[in-house]
Amino acid sequence: MEAIGSVAIIGTGNVASHLGTALFNEGIRISGVYGRKSNEAYTLSHYWNSEIITDLSDLHADLALICVSDDAVNEIVSFLPSGMNVAYTSGSVRLDSFSIKNPIGVFYPLQTFTKGKEVDIFEVPFLIEASLENFAQELFDLASKISRKVVFANSEERTFYHIAAVWVNNFTNHLSYQAKVLLDNQKLDFDLLLPLLRETVDKLHHIGPLNAQTGPARRGDQRTIEKHEKHLAGLQKELYMLITRSIIETYRNDKL
Amino acid sequence: MEAIGSVAIIGTGNVASHLGTALFNEGIRISGVYGRKSNEAYTLSHYWNSEIITDLSDLHADLALICVSDDAVNEIVSFLPSGMNVAYTSGSVRLDSFSIKNPIGVFYPLQTFTKGKEVDIFEVPFLIEASLENFAQELFDLASKISRKVVFANSEERTFYHIAAVWVNNFTNHLSYQAKVLLDNQKLDFDLLLPLLRETVDKLHHIGPLNAQTGPARRGDQRTIEKHEKHLAGLQKELYMLITRSIIETYRNDKL
Repeated sequence: MEAIGSVAIIGTGNVASHLGTALFNEGIRISGVYGRKSNEAYTLSHYWNSEIITDLSDLHADLALICVSDDAVNEIVSFLPSGMNVAYTSGSVRLDSFSIKNPIGVFYPLQTFTKGKEVDIFEVPFLIEASLENFAQELFDLASKISRKVVFANSEERTFYHIAAVWVNNFTNHLSYQAKVLLDNQKLDFDLLLPLLRETVDKLHHIGPLNAQTGPARRGDQRTIEKHEKHLAGLQKELYMLITRSIIETYRNDKL
Repeated sequence: MEAIGSVAIIGTGNVASHLGTALFNEGIRISGVYGRKSNEAYTLSHYWNSEIITDLSDLHADLALICVSDDAVNEIVSFLPSGMNVAYTSGSVRLDSFSIKNPIGVFYPLQTFTKGKEVDIFEVPFLIEASLENFAQELFDLASKISRKVVFANSEERTFYHIAAVWVNNFTNHLSYQAKVLLDNQKLDFDLLLPLLRETVDKLHHIGPLNAQTGPARRGDQRTIEKHEKHLAGLQKELYMLITRSIIETYRNDKL
């Protein structure tokens, strides 16, 4: 089993640029960059001292790392040289959804990446899976160069992590959006909520979300709940009512 | 107008102990502590070098600061000496809900406090309101000794901040709880989600929640949404579907 020493990066988005840079900084050679947006490919290739790939079937690297949207992964894979090691970074694409013969694997960072915003990649968990055991180990070792939290996870397990990530990232963000809309409509200042949001995360980290729960729904404080509902309308009210019901259900058998 | 130099703390819970300690550390004299739990009152009185209050009608301080549950505020107030300055720390009790003649005000910290967990009180926003303008200013000045974010807010505005706090704190925590249940049921590790949760908060702080939104609902990726729904049941599925619908509605008129 040989270590992966060179990687071709397919894609030029946030995942591509963060992962490529992390690998480059750890001494992995980024042999080439492929992207539909030639400006971005040029910028990254310059930064990583890489070639620009124009023909996916003529690609030279120990690994082709596909950092494109879920929908495009399958098509990209079909263009790659047969026999080439391939990995992709998607949370929701199953490993058994490919019909190719190439060794194929998953190199999934459980994190959101934002253009121009640094992330401590060493703290980002990587979920690894591959069609061949040796190749899975090579991907594990590669991820371990840039992260201290690398785990094997099969496609079904990865799906559950992906759903949980939707709750923790997408849905949490949307709740803050709803809170901001509520305050914006009253010309009040959403930024005053940010220390509370940070402490919420600290606290649930500290004592776990089951114990960290507080508030009117947790107390079964119907008077406050009804007062709040009177201040809400439409989808905001539906959301408030359903999440409140779910909290009440969670603690139904507790002594309050 | 005179500055508030001494405070009697009514209550011995997390709000009482955090606020009392913050005021004590800034040189405010905590003249007395009142609590139903005599052990806790004793501990706090020892720490703050205060008397234990046994009779609420015999209370000596520039301010009685009531840090008890919403339901108990009104009753406590009725026992206090007439003429005494009174403030309470509740987000949801309206100032006009009292029938007493005392100068009365609100000293509401927009934060969650956990026993044994330190909070940087200087970053905690305080919402101030009072029945008399002079008294409001005195409460504002007192809060400014322990926090750099003090604002005046009337009862209606405070209600909206309180609702927003429910979204940002109670509901966010519950989403993490649901994500944890989902992973626990599969014997997977919720702790792997914590870096993502932290980055979610950082990111929405950085670029605002409207721009920070990502994920299947944001992309209108029905295939992934349906796949996720198949992995969920009961209230979890209802929550997933409603929040997803709310995100789709939010961006309905955007080009994707």
